[in-house]
Amino acid sequence: MKIAQVAPLYESVPPKLYGGTERVVSYLTDELVRQGEEVTLFASGDSQTAATLVPMSEAALRLQGEQIQDPTAHHIRMLELVIQQAQEFDIFHFHTDYVHFPLLRRIGTPAITTEHGRLDTADLKALFAEFWDVRVVSISKSQREPLAEANWVGNVYHGLPADLFALSQKPEDYLAFLGRISPEKRVDRAIEIAKGAGRRLKIAAKIDESEKDYFDLKIRHLLDDPLIEFVGEIGEHEKQEFLGNAAALVFPIDWPEPFGLVLIEAMACGAPVVAYPFGSVPELVDHGKSGFLAEDIPTAVSMVKKIDEIDRAGCRQVFEDRFTAARMAADYITLYTQVISEETVPLEREFSRGSETK
Amino acid sequence: MKIAQVAPLYESVPPKLYGGTERVVSYLTDELVRQGEEVTLFASGDSQTAATLVPMSEAALRLQGEQIQDPTAHHIRMLELVIQQAQEFDIFHFHTDYVHFPLLRRIGTPAITTEHGRLDTADLKALFAEFWDVRVVSISKSQREPLAEANWVGNVYHGLPADLFALSQKPEDYLAFLGRISPEKRVDRAIEIAKGAGRRLKIAAKIDESEKDYFDLKIRHLLDDPLIEFVGEIGEHEKQEFLGNAAALVFPIDWPEPFGLVLIEAMACGAPVVAYPFGSVPELVDHGKSGFLAEDIPTAVSMVKKIDEIDRAGCRQVFEDRFTAARMAADYITLYTQVISEETVPLEREFSRGSETK
Repeated sequence: MKIAQVAPLYESVPPKLYGGTERVVSYLTDELVRQGEEVTLFASGDSQTAATLVPMSEAALRLQGEQIQDPTAHHIRMLELVIQQAQEFDIFHFHTDYVHFPLLRRIGTPAITTEHGRLDTADLKALFAEFWDVRVVSISKSQREPLAEANWVGNVYHGLPADLFALSQKPEDYLAFLGRISPEKRVDRAIEIAKGAGRRLKIAAKIDESEKDYFDLKIRHLLDDPLIEFVGEIGEHEKQEFLGNAAALVFPIDWPEPFGLVLIEAMACGAPVVAYPFGSVPELVDHGKSGFLAEDIPTAVSMVKKIDEIDRAGCRQVFEDRFTAARMAADYITLYTQVISEETVPLEREFSRGSETK
Repeated sequence: MKIAQVAPLYESVPPKLYGGTERVVSYLTDELVRQGEEVTLFASGDSQTAATLVPMSEAALRLQGEQIQDPTAHHIRMLELVIQQAQEFDIFHFHTDYVHFPLLRRIGTPAITTEHGRLDTADLKALFAEFWDVRVVSISKSQREPLAEANWVGNVYHGLPADLFALSQKPEDYLAFLGRISPEKRVDRAIEIAKGAGRRLKIAAKIDESEKDYFDLKIRHLLDDPLIEFVGEIGEHEKQEFLGNAAALVFPIDWPEPFGLVLIEAMACGAPVVAYPFGSVPELVDHGKSGFLAEDIPTAVSMVKKIDEIDRAGCRQVFEDRFTAARMAADYITLYTQVISEETVPLEREFSRGSETK
């Protein structure tokens, strides 16, 4: 199958630093190639891929600093260049939110779009009502809830290369927090849980410029405790040690996170998770098997206290069963095949049929 | 002629508050209707127009506060709805920067786009190189300079309804500053010029949330002078009095402003201007006739001192000759006619011809 992957240009594929979408696109693209598909990746020019790279910008836009004042200009140009090659591909797989939607109705090539972000803003309601026919893929079922009426053709959970992390059976005694410092990630709750359980907590976290005030005002004073260690931002290659050596990952979020990548990274290392059940979390964590769900501090504390009941090899097994890149790529190949076979009428006709029903 | 005007949705047409683009679209649309054209306006639902309004959002996006987190979603939906009606119009006139460019190549209807903003960001170079064939209109010749290679099909200066302002022959003795408080507008220079000339200065200015620090740190202490009066933001209906009673408008900008609307508002009231010659200014101000150009403070001060040499009726005459909405609409009608007649080959073919030349 000739597949075009269209990634955002904010980060390279994979990203040098933070960037969940571009990282997943990287895992998917490389795995599709491994499984024998013919893949072309439209992405920033500093991307590294097993697919054929078509560079759409010199480098990741976020790394170019003040040079880039208007990222939309680069994405609009990319859309044009992508669409010009429509005849070359059996299917387009977009990862660019919705900016390409009007073009989808005017090309003959089948396409799906994976939505990577949260969809619960009022702005998207009218947009998705208009684009009732555009085939979209969710990354968790909870992500769909605010836009249940969109044309969801599949739900594909993210996956990681099976060998990216290894099972670590002999952890140290600390709890781990890994993520951005931001109000919805609730590192303050993680600290409270650790203190309540009398466990050490290591915090590996990025502090965005925009969250500096929040960190200074709400978080910094909480770190002044012998149990709490702030280790700053860590890179991909440090995650195995950080997560693998953790007794558990704490994930006490306060927002409907569409997919918590760190949850499956922890599982891949054999680290169980203690997580608040918001957004995708209940779909990703098998309570009692790969960790525990808890909705308040006392419950979370008691779950931490009995974390040894969770078998670390069992966590890894859940990862291997449900969250590998191989499974993700296989799911997408099934979807591609299905969408291509459904395309018996050209999009143009299907669209006009839709217009009549309005 | 059946003309579609496509306005941004940030402000209504005309805007309730600040919003140069939407104000010009309003003047143009109403004047085209007055001149007998059949005009449809795609704009926010709270717009007021002599044309047929097709509401594209409930209200101006900027007035809906936190309800609107993602204005692009509303614009993408608008583009789809606009393009669905392509067969209904003889020509599209877009005022939405570049987000519609990929669609222009895939509809049969002729189109022009007026660029309203500054074009000197590096991001736009590659975009306009790709869209070499998209017909664009500048609002001043200086605006084109950073993108000289784009497909400029015309330059149309903005215009105001002839009766919006009236000639005011008996001004008071103050100088006027009208605009946003921001570093590139250089109200600090205006203050220095007024003090140097020993004249009163009235400042009518909006302070954006994002410029509050600049105002507090750099400007506020300069206002503490008997010559300087800060009157805050003024509405459209207050401009006649503010500009009409001014001895002169000072416009000591520090950026390549693509079109200074306030310059022609001042002329319409008969107020001469003392302006720094950046961006469009030398094209708009006839030195010695509708005001003076000055590139430094001492020159500006001496120009203010001889401002009585400028005939206020002459300023108004320049406005009537060059900057009325009737002239602007006539210019656009000429352009529409020319573009429609050039469209002897369908865009699709013209586009493929372009691809060969790359």
